[in-house]
Amino acid sequence: MSGSVSPLAPKTFAEMPSVRGVRMATAAAGIKYKNRTDVLMMVFDRPAAAAGVFTRSKCPSAPVDFCRANLPGGRARAVIVNSGNANAFTGRRGREATAMTAEAAAKAVGCSEGEVFLASTGVIGEPLDATKFSGVLDRLAADATEDFWFEAAKAIMTTDTYPKVATRTAEIGGVSVTINGIAKGAGMIAPDMATMLSFVVTDADIPAPVLQALLSAGVEPTFNCVTVDSDTSTSDTLMLFATGAVEGQPKVADAADPALEGFRAALNDLLRDLALQVVRDGEGARKMVEITVESAEDDAAAKRIALSIANSPLVKTAVAGEDANWGRIVMAVGKSGEKADRDRLAIWFGDVRVAVDGERDPAYSEVAVSAVMKREDIPVRVEIGLGSGRATVWTCDLTKEYVEINGDYRS
Amino acid sequence: MSGSVSPLAPKTFAEMPSVRGVRMATAAAGIKYKNRTDVLMMVFDRPAAAAGVFTRSKCPSAPVDFCRANLPGGRARAVIVNSGNANAFTGRRGREATAMTAEAAAKAVGCSEGEVFLASTGVIGEPLDATKFSGVLDRLAADATEDFWFEAAKAIMTTDTYPKVATRTAEIGGVSVTINGIAKGAGMIAPDMATMLSFVVTDADIPAPVLQALLSAGVEPTFNCVTVDSDTSTSDTLMLFATGAVEGQPKVADAADPALEGFRAALNDLLRDLALQVVRDGEGARKMVEITVESAEDDAAAKRIALSIANSPLVKTAVAGEDANWGRIVMAVGKSGEKADRDRLAIWFGDVRVAVDGERDPAYSEVAVSAVMKREDIPVRVEIGLGSGRATVWTCDLTKEYVEINGDYRS
Repeated sequence: MSGSVSPLAPKTFAEMPSVRGVRMATAAAGIKYKNRTDVLMMVFDRPAAAAGVFTRSKCPSAPVDFCRANLPGGRARAVIVNSGNANAFTGRRGREATAMTAEAAAKAVGCSEGEVFLASTGVIGEPLDATKFSGVLDRLAADATEDFWFEAAKAIMTTDTYPKVATRTAEIGGVSVTINGIAKGAGMIAPDMATMLSFVVTDADIPAPVLQALLSAGVEPTFNCVTVDSDTSTSDTLMLFATGAVEGQPKVADAADPALEGFRAALNDLLRDLALQVVRDGEGARKMVEITVESAEDDAAAKRIALSIANSPLVKTAVAGEDANWGRIVMAVGKSGEKADRDRLAIWFGDVRVAVDGERDPAYSEVAVSAVMKREDIPVRVEIGLGSGRATVWTCDLTKEYVEINGDYRS
Repeated sequence: MSGSVSPLAPKTFAEMPSVRGVRMATAAAGIKYKNRTDVLMMVFDRPAAAAGVFTRSKCPSAPVDFCRANLPGGRARAVIVNSGNANAFTGRRGREATAMTAEAAAKAVGCSEGEVFLASTGVIGEPLDATKFSGVLDRLAADATEDFWFEAAKAIMTTDTYPKVATRTAEIGGVSVTINGIAKGAGMIAPDMATMLSFVVTDADIPAPVLQALLSAGVEPTFNCVTVDSDTSTSDTLMLFATGAVEGQPKVADAADPALEGFRAALNDLLRDLALQVVRDGEGARKMVEITVESAEDDAAAKRIALSIANSPLVKTAVAGEDANWGRIVMAVGKSGEKADRDRLAIWFGDVRVAVDGERDPAYSEVAVSAVMKREDIPVRVEIGLGSGRATVWTCDLTKEYVEINGDYRS
């Protein structure tokens, strides 16, 4: 956890209401950090429907393997998350740690190990001593309360400088439901299925396959469109649980059910909120950059071009230096491998068009664009001029602080 | 040009012999820099065979377009290179600048514009005022001398902290030939066909198609295996010229001719020398990292995994912090998209195996690996354990100085 809070942090945090059907507790198990909580337990007193998306890394962590194995069951009674150690690249001992944790959690809440989900975040490659927290799960299960979202978000932080929480409400068939979510992540953030850790719970009554469809669709334009450093984690986990504790909600059997429209919109809005909070806490970030690519060959091409810009160290350092360096945008468009014609490109920083028809905009004012670059939030728009493909992604600048934070993490 | 020379710079520079058939001169045209040369002219008094490889960027610079158009002719009489402005994303005016330069060069040496090759390096997106140097080409052509390689390398520098020169000799059919090369590049360096600017001249007598075959093959394991920041330039140009001024060399008609074996080896060795000099001058670099991936599914997979490691900001910042953070290597292997099995991976820093069979090597010594990390040159080896694919790539660390240099480049 860094000493100073990101200047891009939300000015106020959301007031998090309770979500019926889920209770939480945290503990300070001393896994790596001193004087802070590092274990979160979520308890569903009745089985919740479960959905999840995970890293596409070919070297996933032991908890990711564990969750993938349990997900087809679609039922959750307990979630255990620890920070300080990712339990990734830990081989046989990593699997022993997940087994021990799952066994302790199942015993604590009285469920099967197939109804337990696990996530770990922190350093990769160090063995995780699960005995440190498996002993406290009984107490956590007993103490867990409904009104604990902010503390839950704090317990899963690593290099995050602030806890990430979001809440929304929606109506399903005239019945109001709540969606609460927490997330962590600041570095090793690049979109590939899910990024970082995030846990979202609703009291809506939605079966697991429908929940999975909603989540898989919702993650695409949100978590899968943010990047801090192009590095995809071994541990990326985003899970969505529906406790069904709401009263009187009509049944839904299909993600295409029109009754879910409001819920889908609220869920996607919440996912986007959490995803942007992660970018705003990007390691060393001082600026947030929203990159929109328009008129590319198709949407997929637009997204690849947008991510090529968002992941370019030269674009990101230029933003850090408050330099509207459109030449580096051109470079990043060119290296993306997608169809582009230099002489049709147009580039905007904020409302200032700096380049058009393959050269500097003759009407372009350095003073106007400098004012844009001094902002905290910098919109960049690129018109490719070839088709109707469109995508928006979000990133942050690359500062000396990023280098400092990551030159001294493991030790 | 940075104030201080990279600590990874060569301790001594190669003594560059003359290459018969090529003369050079430089000038200070004030394109961007003050008090230094920024234009290089190479003159071939008799037409030299020409080969080239260029950036794969979809938004190449005007000089790259110009060279591509002339290359099928395979004959060179003049090469004009300027630093300080890349003449990229400069539209119609960019093409006017290349036309004006080519016309002036052709007039100065008495050749056709199809025998002229051009390269520009520096800021992207600013119009290049070619009148600044087109007027001096007559004088440069007259003054050009054979013994000017080191000055030539200096004139094409941008953020480079030292000039890059290399020389080799080889025998073709018992006749000794010389190969001299210069290169520039420090940032916006990522392998994709050719990287940065480099010009290599031999006095051997080799026809253009054979020269092209040798160059296209030679660039793969050399310039295409280095990366500073994963950002591919709009201007990447690597050209190889053969003046044929050597006396008595037997004709060669095919790149597979056994008589070319020694030449091929010397050329590839020189290309590698120049490519590594570019990495060693990577912006802000304090460490050079050689990454070898073995037993991947095939060579292409090994190269993609190696580049995924080499381009990871988290790996590069860990190296800057002298931290043998093998967890980040695992992450980068996992995100490469190539086949990998966590439990078969083994990772070495220098001779120290830090991880094996999917977890930390029990015999691993932090003291021993710390000693490796303190070196200037750090070898990293990853065994994937799946096949016989192999690749080696080179990169540098990511330091605060990189951010500093690139947060303040355009201005």
